[in-house]
Amino acid sequence: MAKEITSRSEDYSKWYNDIIKKAGLADHSPVRGCMVIKPYGFAIWEKMKAQLDKMFKDSGHVNAYFPIFIPKSFLSKEADHVEGFAKECAVVTHHRLMNNPDGPGVVVDPSARLEEELVVRPTSETIIWNTYRDWIKSYRDLPLLINQWANVVRWEMRTRPFLRTAEFLWQEGHTAHATEEEAVAEADLIHEIYARFAEDYMAMPVIKGAKTVNERFAGADNTLTIEALMQDGKALQAGTSHFLGQNFAKAFDVKYSNDKNEEAYVWATSWGVSTRLVGGLIMTHSDDEGLVLPPKLAPIQVVMVPIPKPLPEIIEKFEQLKASLEAKGISVKIDTDTKKRTGFKFAEYEMKGVPVRVALGPRDLESNQIEIARRDTKEKQSISMDNASEFIAALLDEIQDNLLQRAKDYRSAHYSVADDFDEFKNLLESKGGFVYAHWDGTAETELKIKELTKATIRCIPNDNPQEDGKCILTGNPSKERVLFAKSY
Amino acid sequence: MAKEITSRSEDYSKWYNDIIKKAGLADHSPVRGCMVIKPYGFAIWEKMKAQLDKMFKDSGHVNAYFPIFIPKSFLSKEADHVEGFAKECAVVTHHRLMNNPDGPGVVVDPSARLEEELVVRPTSETIIWNTYRDWIKSYRDLPLLINQWANVVRWEMRTRPFLRTAEFLWQEGHTAHATEEEAVAEADLIHEIYARFAEDYMAMPVIKGAKTVNERFAGADNTLTIEALMQDGKALQAGTSHFLGQNFAKAFDVKYSNDKNEEAYVWATSWGVSTRLVGGLIMTHSDDEGLVLPPKLAPIQVVMVPIPKPLPEIIEKFEQLKASLEAKGISVKIDTDTKKRTGFKFAEYEMKGVPVRVALGPRDLESNQIEIARRDTKEKQSISMDNASEFIAALLDEIQDNLLQRAKDYRSAHYSVADDFDEFKNLLESKGGFVYAHWDGTAETELKIKELTKATIRCIPNDNPQEDGKCILTGNPSKERVLFAKSY
Repeated sequence: MAKEITSRSEDYSKWYNDIIKKAGLADHSPVRGCMVIKPYGFAIWEKMKAQLDKMFKDSGHVNAYFPIFIPKSFLSKEADHVEGFAKECAVVTHHRLMNNPDGPGVVVDPSARLEEELVVRPTSETIIWNTYRDWIKSYRDLPLLINQWANVVRWEMRTRPFLRTAEFLWQEGHTAHATEEEAVAEADLIHEIYARFAEDYMAMPVIKGAKTVNERFAGADNTLTIEALMQDGKALQAGTSHFLGQNFAKAFDVKYSNDKNEEAYVWATSWGVSTRLVGGLIMTHSDDEGLVLPPKLAPIQVVMVPIPKPLPEIIEKFEQLKASLEAKGISVKIDTDTKKRTGFKFAEYEMKGVPVRVALGPRDLESNQIEIARRDTKEKQSISMDNASEFIAALLDEIQDNLLQRAKDYRSAHYSVADDFDEFKNLLESKGGFVYAHWDGTAETELKIKELTKATIRCIPNDNPQEDGKCILTGNPSKERVLFAKSY
Repeated sequence: MAKEITSRSEDYSKWYNDIIKKAGLADHSPVRGCMVIKPYGFAIWEKMKAQLDKMFKDSGHVNAYFPIFIPKSFLSKEADHVEGFAKECAVVTHHRLMNNPDGPGVVVDPSARLEEELVVRPTSETIIWNTYRDWIKSYRDLPLLINQWANVVRWEMRTRPFLRTAEFLWQEGHTAHATEEEAVAEADLIHEIYARFAEDYMAMPVIKGAKTVNERFAGADNTLTIEALMQDGKALQAGTSHFLGQNFAKAFDVKYSNDKNEEAYVWATSWGVSTRLVGGLIMTHSDDEGLVLPPKLAPIQVVMVPIPKPLPEIIEKFEQLKASLEAKGISVKIDTDTKKRTGFKFAEYEMKGVPVRVALGPRDLESNQIEIARRDTKEKQSISMDNASEFIAALLDEIQDNLLQRAKDYRSAHYSVADDFDEFKNLLESKGGFVYAHWDGTAETELKIKELTKATIRCIPNDNPQEDGKCILTGNPSKERVLFAKSY
């Protein structure tokens, strides 16, 4: 495998595409804006999914599945929702093809027009709340804590593998509660789970906060977000948790009778993360040699390469070490390929971001040594075979911690405070990253700043200190700073 | 929960729908032919999925994901395939909605018409083989052993929850091989995995065999099937594995160069099982009291009900037993609800098919006894608390075995051999089930028999004995008997 990837400094966007291609994560498809997720990329998503699913279930959620199609009329039932979602989506108008009467191939059968068009779900609030009306009668039916793993489609104009695609995979939680307090607490709980997943598993530090009114989910009373920072200084919205108030309950007439037999509308949340996280993972850790993966999400955590070829006595040692590592829950691949050169293999596993590479040759065997290379720092060392298993297990933890620390350091170095608009603009231009600044709280100012700088308010951080100040753009009084950045 | 379900003898079809409703497995949706899979039904599918996924991975397969949309023109590239699949499907013609200029709501934006219509995948051979053309260059790229878990849509006219729905969830494997022998072996391997899964996990005995030419998958050179028998004497095609020859490789021009640098078309298989298996599971084991689940696929394997209420000393005993069972990998629910009566709870868990129910009251505590009830036979017994954990673990195995044996006994009792057409018709009418009979090997006779009796050839069993005979319909010479049944 040739290491022909563009460097980050040369062209970050091209570097990202090169990594995706060379590490075998995804491929283009003949359908505009849709990608093929290749086995190695999908294996990363599967690891993310397994961990998130466990976290959801451990906190009392269950999975279900709702139809992919949404009747067109449903989308317009919640007034804000239709503005945000009803527009760019895939519309099914017919249910049959027929042989082309005028030539080869097939054409749409004009007689098979649907009475009401169906939209491929861009998100499922409407069809789910239409169903919840039948499921929720009494306080005993609440809370309803349901999650769905699904594909959704939004007809995006500009797409980029994983980060923004027309079809993407995600999970969408949709919960129903008897009280406002419970629904708010649920949105907070998920916000916390997302942040913990990002930091503890993806080794991707995030800032937790709330979106401004302007940036809220269409139909939400509050949108909580986790915001990460990519290596080009742009922010990535990595997951959102919405408090929906009673908006969807009212739109779909979902009421329950409480223990005093009084009727009331149900309170709701919805929340989601998607295959976008794979894009965030790539951009957070990878380098000019290829993908770098945190051990907890790496499909292969340790690869063993025999030098120069798979002699039986080397493979035997590898098998012993593999068994010992697997007993610790570590995934191992022994490379027994005889067609590829060692240098090629090393470059390939580097490109694929395998956290630890183990190499063993006949001379090592004699000296009872084994060579261990870590992907994150590219350091190599030879250690005694006798404690290789413990060493590698500890090294994987160390790599996980190091990647998080490195990402935190990058973020610290790209986190600034600005007190006036020139400084603000300069910071965004010179080093990018997050800029913490006063804002007068109006949507107009927010949009004007975006127009002038391309930076948006990523969030109002949790536990944001209150302080009197002046808006960087208008000079109007402000009670707190908010977090700006350019973003994906 | 009232036990108001229709009995099987009264109306089998209504009984099936009642079980689905009362056990909380699925619900109707506002989209024609699409169902909502409720949490309890989805939990069964998740258990199936986890086990199948493990079996696929253990045999060298990996997962990937391909777009949900297929360009219309792709469907007509493989001649047989278009006849079988291109017709009844959801067609996306537009990518935007707009506010209705003449009133409320949204309408399709006529300016957003797609240049080429997209079909929601009814199956993915075409888009996958279009992609494989880029992935396969040399024998070193083969075999390609890829599986996908996905939703697919076929615009069915008559639908039934789980058994036949417009949208359904499934896995579809798509493999590419250098030689015909390898592809044939792959189709056999998967056939074997499907049969093992059906018998060892679903406790659903199946007959393995090949479909007749007439019943083959559209585009296959051979279709292998597993055929199960439901309690109304109808067969259910539960999974198919197709040897596709070089049909899709030729249609999509997928060639590889072998180690002598000669170009050749690639050989293919595809194979799938779907949420239909949940329907098969219900119909194989359930009774007039509700769902019956084999322990290996039951979301809750053991439920513990305190009598009459969750006293702390009872819950304490339950917690101890639960810990001991969970250490054995057994899933347990302790019912601490104080609002429902015991009788209601018992009926509810019976309806949901929980394999083992444990009950404990103050008097049992004194005598150190615990009551164990099994769902399959409805037998109850009191045993000493001291070895409850071992007893329950063994009982779960026994229930699993008993369900398989019961289903095998049912099938044996509904398996007949017919030598003439009157006998054949009588057997189908009187007891249903499989009828093993001679057939002259022509598609015409096969269709004629279907017309006259509604029975189809389910399969030509594996290792079918060869014997000279006469076709039951035409009297023409036949070399082997084949397996007929009415089917879902």
